[in-house]
Amino acid sequence: MDLMTDAGEDLVDAAELITEDELRLAARNHGMPLEALRYPITPVGLHYLLIHYDIPEVDEASFTLTIAGRVRRPTTLTLADLQTRPAAVAAVTMECAGNGRAHLKPRPISQPWLLGATGTAEWTGTPLRSLLEEAGLLDDAVEVVFTGLDHGVEKGVEQDYQRGLPLAEAMRTETLLAYAMNGQPLLPQHGFPLRLVVPGWYGMTNVKWLTRITVVAQPFAGYQQVRGYHLRTDDDDPGTPVTRMMPRALMVAPGIPDFLTRRRFVRPGSHRLRGRAWSGWAPIRAVDVSVDGGRTWAAGQLEAQPSGFAWCGWSCSWTASPGDHELCCRAIDESGRQQPLDIPWNVGGYANNAVQRIHVTVTDQPGDVLEPAV
Amino acid sequence: MDLMTDAGEDLVDAAELITEDELRLAARNHGMPLEALRYPITPVGLHYLLIHYDIPEVDEASFTLTIAGRVRRPTTLTLADLQTRPAAVAAVTMECAGNGRAHLKPRPISQPWLLGATGTAEWTGTPLRSLLEEAGLLDDAVEVVFTGLDHGVEKGVEQDYQRGLPLAEAMRTETLLAYAMNGQPLLPQHGFPLRLVVPGWYGMTNVKWLTRITVVAQPFAGYQQVRGYHLRTDDDDPGTPVTRMMPRALMVAPGIPDFLTRRRFVRPGSHRLRGRAWSGWAPIRAVDVSVDGGRTWAAGQLEAQPSGFAWCGWSCSWTASPGDHELCCRAIDESGRQQPLDIPWNVGGYANNAVQRIHVTVTDQPGDVLEPAV
Repeated sequence: MDLMTDAGEDLVDAAELITEDELRLAARNHGMPLEALRYPITPVGLHYLLIHYDIPEVDEASFTLTIAGRVRRPTTLTLADLQTRPAAVAAVTMECAGNGRAHLKPRPISQPWLLGATGTAEWTGTPLRSLLEEAGLLDDAVEVVFTGLDHGVEKGVEQDYQRGLPLAEAMRTETLLAYAMNGQPLLPQHGFPLRLVVPGWYGMTNVKWLTRITVVAQPFAGYQQVRGYHLRTDDDDPGTPVTRMMPRALMVAPGIPDFLTRRRFVRPGSHRLRGRAWSGWAPIRAVDVSVDGGRTWAAGQLEAQPSGFAWCGWSCSWTASPGDHELCCRAIDESGRQQPLDIPWNVGGYANNAVQRIHVTVTDQPGDVLEPAV
Repeated sequence: MDLMTDAGEDLVDAAELITEDELRLAARNHGMPLEALRYPITPVGLHYLLIHYDIPEVDEASFTLTIAGRVRRPTTLTLADLQTRPAAVAAVTMECAGNGRAHLKPRPISQPWLLGATGTAEWTGTPLRSLLEEAGLLDDAVEVVFTGLDHGVEKGVEQDYQRGLPLAEAMRTETLLAYAMNGQPLLPQHGFPLRLVVPGWYGMTNVKWLTRITVVAQPFAGYQQVRGYHLRTDDDDPGTPVTRMMPRALMVAPGIPDFLTRRRFVRPGSHRLRGRAWSGWAPIRAVDVSVDGGRTWAAGQLEAQPSGFAWCGWSCSWTASPGDHELCCRAIDESGRQQPLDIPWNVGGYANNAVQRIHVTVTDQPGDVLEPAV
């Protein structure tokens, strides 16, 4: 298709363009607008969404979860069966493994996430561990495979969405079969009526519309396990699997935006920069903040982290002087992992946790600043 | 930024590309995945969202709505004041005036909607009419201006989001000040704590985060009224204002998708095509369906339309034979307005209600069909 600006005169630079495939994905898969970092629990509808195929239509009355494979007592449960079991509630930050992909150069063509593929929900569910214990794991069990009701085609492979999880992760006390989100039944797009929640792992692990749990004696070799979600340097590299979320801090952009360009304008004077930070590997140790594009850094003030698996609020004062500034924030966790300044490139565009950079113009007259040339 | 496919080998055709400005908007502004047409009331979080600036942070306790201007008794109300007034509940279909913009050639650069900028919610609120009557309209009142708490810059103009509405529309009994959506308090992104709902009009009319209602004696000349939301043939054309939603039918794409391309695969045999249709001008009279790209049409079966302002379900049987097919649907309303086959171009890319076209491949072996060359 041909392009024109709103004013009708200019073609745009092809080096900065996104494909129609990416647009179709971006129109379906919702990012969280980053001003929503102000909420410790993301309001329903602002939590990010990545849906591989279509949202399946699930009839609650006929829905069942089957637990089978390498167990002594295979079993099938209804949603009511699951809801009468002991319940746990946990605030968990989730992030798509592709978050930040659209900043990679060259850019892998898939869901073109900027930085919004995240959110924190309060999940209610029943611990998976006790269900597996009651089913009776056989001695040769090594992994647990989770099958969703979403069904489609990917790289020529027709499939139900399926992921495997090492047995030790499945048996963690925090691993939930969740049927409620922020105190309400799961919405269709978040996996109604049941989904897996594995705190600390990237989003692809948390299988939605979960209908089957299969304990297996061999590592799972399905599409999403061995082709998708690997860090590869090139197509011949077998790569390493994507697992837990790398540390990341994000900031609420201060000031006000321009509608089209999202360029930010900030009044001169005293401001409090705010954001949240998380890591799937360990609690957050520190968030450092820079207001000069990363040349100098100051320690942000951390709020108490509500749990080991939910993001941690941080803030930092800033006296804004007129002119252009680049604001950055950088998390380090208790395991010593910290965000890189340079983007960690890989073929699939996964786990890009390079520091966020926000360009702002400090001025008393935002309306008088010329729009940047497109 | 440079581009590559997931397999690492190809550059893409620049003629089909989307700008970074458009991607930033697409990442913030959520479309409804069209399989959600299956729901008569769109689940929370799947309803489309267009947010000009940032979602404002509103403190319910200190929130007020002021009614002022050309009235005898200016007044200020709290949310509790509004909630103790007579309440009305209405299912209303809403659509962004820019829905379909990304299909225009050349493409105006703004929020690049495909076809998902729609949704139907059940709004609860209090009728505006009685509030205006109690305030006492002065004889010279001609329009009502609605001001939201969202604030930003657009084409060099710093502004609160504001729209004017002719007095007769403001005084319609269906026009609501809504504080609940689908039975729950408004979510932040849908205008918490209060928004305007004018059934039948495109989305820009339904001012969110509504804090001020000003009755005026002259037509409102703010940015969103005289620069935005006009149908113009070129930049020198004063144009005509965008008002009510043009008729549109949409279909749930049958079959299953390919993840990346959203290409659809359907099993051979008997299927029921389903969708919904609406118009802001009049109830839906008919939805016609074509399975041969618009060469021949058959009448779809209409469900009862739940109200004059909510979409109407339709369906049509289809016997799918192997091969490629183009499915289309086309609404006509009781005013005689019907969807065009050709796209109605205008500078701002508004009100493109050309018929939807869905390409499907009917096959027993979706996984064996080669992916299209990128």
